[in-house]
Amino acid sequence: MKEFKGMLIIADGLGGRPTDTPEGKTCLEAARTPHLDELARRGALGLLDPIAPGVRPGSDTAHLSIFGYDPFREYPGRGVFEAVGVGLEVHEGDICFRTNFATVDENFVVRDRRAGRIHEGQEELERALQGLKPRSAPDVEVLFKASTEHRGALVLRGPDLSPSVSEADPHEVGRRVHEVVPLEDTPQARRTAQIVNDILKQSYEVLKDLPLNKEREAKGLPPANILLPRGPSTVPRFETLPQRYGITGTVIAAGALYIGIGKLLGLEFQRAEGATGGLDTNVNNKIALALEELRRKDFVFVHIKGTDTAGHDRNAQAKMGFIERIDEALKPLVEGLDWERTHLAFTGDHATPVQYGDHVSDPVPVLFAGPNVLPDPVEAFHERAAQRGGLHRFAGRVVPMLAGYNNWLQKFGT
Amino acid sequence: MKEFKGMLIIADGLGGRPTDTPEGKTCLEAARTPHLDELARRGALGLLDPIAPGVRPGSDTAHLSIFGYDPFREYPGRGVFEAVGVGLEVHEGDICFRTNFATVDENFVVRDRRAGRIHEGQEELERALQGLKPRSAPDVEVLFKASTEHRGALVLRGPDLSPSVSEADPHEVGRRVHEVVPLEDTPQARRTAQIVNDILKQSYEVLKDLPLNKEREAKGLPPANILLPRGPSTVPRFETLPQRYGITGTVIAAGALYIGIGKLLGLEFQRAEGATGGLDTNVNNKIALALEELRRKDFVFVHIKGTDTAGHDRNAQAKMGFIERIDEALKPLVEGLDWERTHLAFTGDHATPVQYGDHVSDPVPVLFAGPNVLPDPVEAFHERAAQRGGLHRFAGRVVPMLAGYNNWLQKFGT
Repeated sequence: MKEFKGMLIIADGLGGRPTDTPEGKTCLEAARTPHLDELARRGALGLLDPIAPGVRPGSDTAHLSIFGYDPFREYPGRGVFEAVGVGLEVHEGDICFRTNFATVDENFVVRDRRAGRIHEGQEELERALQGLKPRSAPDVEVLFKASTEHRGALVLRGPDLSPSVSEADPHEVGRRVHEVVPLEDTPQARRTAQIVNDILKQSYEVLKDLPLNKEREAKGLPPANILLPRGPSTVPRFETLPQRYGITGTVIAAGALYIGIGKLLGLEFQRAEGATGGLDTNVNNKIALALEELRRKDFVFVHIKGTDTAGHDRNAQAKMGFIERIDEALKPLVEGLDWERTHLAFTGDHATPVQYGDHVSDPVPVLFAGPNVLPDPVEAFHERAAQRGGLHRFAGRVVPMLAGYNNWLQKFGT
Repeated sequence: MKEFKGMLIIADGLGGRPTDTPEGKTCLEAARTPHLDELARRGALGLLDPIAPGVRPGSDTAHLSIFGYDPFREYPGRGVFEAVGVGLEVHEGDICFRTNFATVDENFVVRDRRAGRIHEGQEELERALQGLKPRSAPDVEVLFKASTEHRGALVLRGPDLSPSVSEADPHEVGRRVHEVVPLEDTPQARRTAQIVNDILKQSYEVLKDLPLNKEREAKGLPPANILLPRGPSTVPRFETLPQRYGITGTVIAAGALYIGIGKLLGLEFQRAEGATGGLDTNVNNKIALALEELRRKDFVFVHIKGTDTAGHDRNAQAKMGFIERIDEALKPLVEGLDWERTHLAFTGDHATPVQYGDHVSDPVPVLFAGPNVLPDPVEAFHERAAQRGGLHRFAGRVVPMLAGYNNWLQKFGT
């Protein structure tokens, strides 16, 4: 094990805007965060452009950038993160999709893009979709795994496939499911588009009469009667964090995307009890597990989603409340972390202001604390405090900086 | 001559960490530096990432970056800087190595990687190694020049050579000298590896019975009985500073690496009396010579090594003392520089904190002063003061910024 250890905590969509509250404070400013403020006193703040100034981040690209990978060069598309995150094994050459269970009528017009955020029956749906076979390409294997609610992942395995295909999801209720078309003029893209259209129709045939869906219809709930794949991707070959830094590490998250990112970067996934990826998650258990994991690992990455969810829901009260729950969960960390040999980085992967309800490119506050971090005079953790932070402003690369404080970096040159 | 002139002073490994001293100050904070503080009052501070946040710099790559060259694209390896620095002429196609005189036993097991940091006899050793001829490649010319202590440089000149070969130096006492192997599957790499292995063995044959070494053995000193080449490089073709800015310039340094960098970037080398590249160097003479050179040149680069040496030695007292000696040497500059038409940049090429004893990726303070620099309110020069610096934080490119203040830059676009 290394002399110094590192912990990265990302509160998804943490950042906000002065429009968050009537008095012109961001949710993070308005929330009571004594433990984050204590960490700010001990350490140093900066302003993080998750990818670059004026680049509006997705959660996947922002995470890659924060981990020190250039998303403009290394982003494979989202599908593979979801596929690995739900527990599918992927191989080089596979094409991966994230999927939604949706509700369509007999003309394939979308009635609900998330099948009413279906809460149960995922196992039955998953079972029904095993062994799909593209009629046009019997040499291609189809793997499917359901995740939480309407979410899942689909993997196509076989020769001559391409991620360059369009999306089936019309992203709007009342519109017909799109015919998937090749996005480049290659036999691989044409073949893959045909396979996806085929899988899509087969999924409707298999799902529409499923007892689960008949029951849902009887209850007036939208049936999960079609699988809409999106975010096609290849399988990237990242230099993993263990390869890069010679460390062992753990990812603690609930969302498949974040689990998948962690696993593809070489971290071991550990599930915290009560971690849901929603506003009802058990943050305390995540932090407790992180502290435990750090006893036998060099690095722990904790991902907390609720801040982003509240932002997407445009719910300032929920966002502030969730930030305060995160802060409370940090108490055992502030008090119990081995501060003589651990560096902590705390930040968001982007801002999700409640008025806009989606990701924006504004920089987010970032905090480093630990023995090798030169403290700055800032004594609070929020966007306005970070404007006076001693680390000034930088783009992505939080994990390489954490690795620097931990003396994990190889020298470039001599 | 230009209307405005520029001086760059790099104190190698200047930056530190709060772990440098028991009271949580860096060496630079703890040292008494009235002249640097006076320059801080007159000018503006920033935080410099020598290469990029979370990149751990070597001295060679950091200097390239500070001079405005992208080390990821333009770093040729270290050898050529050392070769040029010791005074060897290099041509395109040459393969250059830095070398150590080391001590091995008859089985090529390393007993001392630096032959006891041999202090004299370099001329005799150099003479003995003239005219080496690779048996496997009689068309290849071998040039060698000794530098200070155990250091030297080796150049291979001839057709079909490659820098893609492994290192002979096992970097550990008690281990056998490594067989040099090709690092890529090309005839050039295979041929070069064979030549280096051959030179290495020849050096042992030539050196082992040298009178100098017999005397050293008689005195109980480790003989300098083998030449270990490392840091293979090609000869780069940089756009020089005179080409880029239309200026004349001087490099004042003692270490071969820094002399070599300066020369390859088009600066004329001038030796300051008493400049040793160590903690015993005469900083006063370097600054005095720089002031003199600036009367007839547009640009002077002064490199001072002792700060890095003290950092590598993990000696906080030595580092603070040496920083104070640099500060004293700046008195004539603060008082005597033509401040109406000169801009000064003062910084380190990286941090070498005394607790870690090696380079780290932490940003270092940088100072600009002169008539075109907008002063900030900071009145001291150290890491913590730079957290409040008006120049915020930036990566490399100190010389282009100095050129900017000096109105030397060509317009990009119209």
